[in-house]
Amino acid sequence: MNRLDALAALRGRFPILESGHVWLAGAGPGDPGLLTLDALAGLAQAEVIVHDALVGDRVLALAGPQAKLEFAGKRGGRPSAQQADISRHLVELARAKKKVLRLKGGDPCMFGRGGEEAIALADAGVPYRIIPGITAGLSALSAASIPATMRGVNHAIIFATGHTDGDFDWAALARTGQPIVIYMAMRNVEQIVEAFLHGGLAPQTPAAVIVAATTPEQRIAISRLDCLVDVVRNIGFSLPGLIVIGDIVNERDRLLKTAAKAEAMR
Amino acid sequence: MNRLDALAALRGRFPILESGHVWLAGAGPGDPGLLTLDALAGLAQAEVIVHDALVGDRVLALAGPQAKLEFAGKRGGRPSAQQADISRHLVELARAKKKVLRLKGGDPCMFGRGGEEAIALADAGVPYRIIPGITAGLSALSAASIPATMRGVNHAIIFATGHTDGDFDWAALARTGQPIVIYMAMRNVEQIVEAFLHGGLAPQTPAAVIVAATTPEQRIAISRLDCLVDVVRNIGFSLPGLIVIGDIVNERDRLLKTAAKAEAMR
Repeated sequence: MNRLDALAALRGRFPILESGHVWLAGAGPGDPGLLTLDALAGLAQAEVIVHDALVGDRVLALAGPQAKLEFAGKRGGRPSAQQADISRHLVELARAKKKVLRLKGGDPCMFGRGGEEAIALADAGVPYRIIPGITAGLSALSAASIPATMRGVNHAIIFATGHTDGDFDWAALARTGQPIVIYMAMRNVEQIVEAFLHGGLAPQTPAAVIVAATTPEQRIAISRLDCLVDVVRNIGFSLPGLIVIGDIVNERDRLLKTAAKAEAMR
Repeated sequence: MNRLDALAALRGRFPILESGHVWLAGAGPGDPGLLTLDALAGLAQAEVIVHDALVGDRVLALAGPQAKLEFAGKRGGRPSAQQADISRHLVELARAKKKVLRLKGGDPCMFGRGGEEAIALADAGVPYRIIPGITAGLSALSAASIPATMRGVNHAIIFATGHTDGDFDWAALARTGQPIVIYMAMRNVEQIVEAFLHGGLAPQTPAAVIVAATTPEQRIAISRLDCLVDVVRNIGFSLPGLIVIGDIVNERDRLLKTAAKAEAMR
């Protein structure tokens, strides 16, 4: 039985990826169990899959046999494809009447340049669809048994990118008193921690570093704001990791008391 | 072919929901295509599915034939189940050696009380697992063609709940200059808008109201901060809706230029 028949058995019907269309889809954090059914439908139907480095092999293994896999994205140490080149290539593929899946780690529009690619497709008159994915921040929190929100602890949660130009006002985020999840935070951790301390966050504010959530390379380190730089130095500045800062990190101990991972597999 | 065989055909293997275990899973926004494979595995295996009002019929239709569906959650106008009662019931079901799926709209830990339920299970010694889902905020943005982040527009995005006690510092969120997505915002829209205006947000700040994203009842209204109360009054204060405030709303026009929904179904 092929995957399309299996999808039909599961859902009765599923959306059709048409020739000349592009789906901008999120692949989630790496665990294929956190793929959406629509992303899976894209993998099963696409003739070309243009993916970034954060889309893991276990997800790409779900591509149909007809799919050509193309890597386009950043990978540590190698020159990265230019965003304009990627967008232009997606337009070319669509104009060649391919069924195109643009697959990104996490959610395509959460620090993923999905918006820019959508605009490029719109400008070129290419029909496209955005399929959200489980964003890295939420899957990392879940993998670390840190709830995103908890009554009595926080009313909001902030997702930020660590790739900012120098004048970003980190202190304003700190002054909200709400937890902050920072994507791509490893390289700039020193500058970020300093800005938060200057912005009034207590040095002992709970903090966590979460690397490669839901993959076999997953690492979780629990610490405090003023120790974060040392922790990240030990783990490695170049790894893809998130940092979580705020009292919500303390809830982990309560959730972990007996949490059992469902490791059994059929 | 049953759904478990179809899942096996899709993935080779999938996690097993064992007797006496509870999975706290997110169902996403309503569209079954935005379910994760692991949530689907839970639906297919569970003997009891305890769901809230935001989990739609199209998702529950994917439950296995053995599953007993139990409603526990808030619904407009009706007395809602107490959180402690729900947690206690989950513990009882697990102790009766049931395979239990606790299914919540969106992500279980984003304003979904998943953390509280996890702690109750941990305290009772019940093995559990948290399965993240597509959170309502991200699916609403995607449905409205508003990218969550865009270079040159924002470095962060804030997700907040409109259900706060009176002294929440909305103005501090406004002063970050970053877009704000407010869950359960309809009833308190007047107070929230006032706080943002006092906090320094310009009256003409772009804003959107998004109701029932990805469902047949979906409604999207684009406006500005100082008109939000009128817009929400017209749509209905009691509907489940999100509000988005910030310049990112302006990107919608660029994304929509030729966006085509993939409506074809197999």
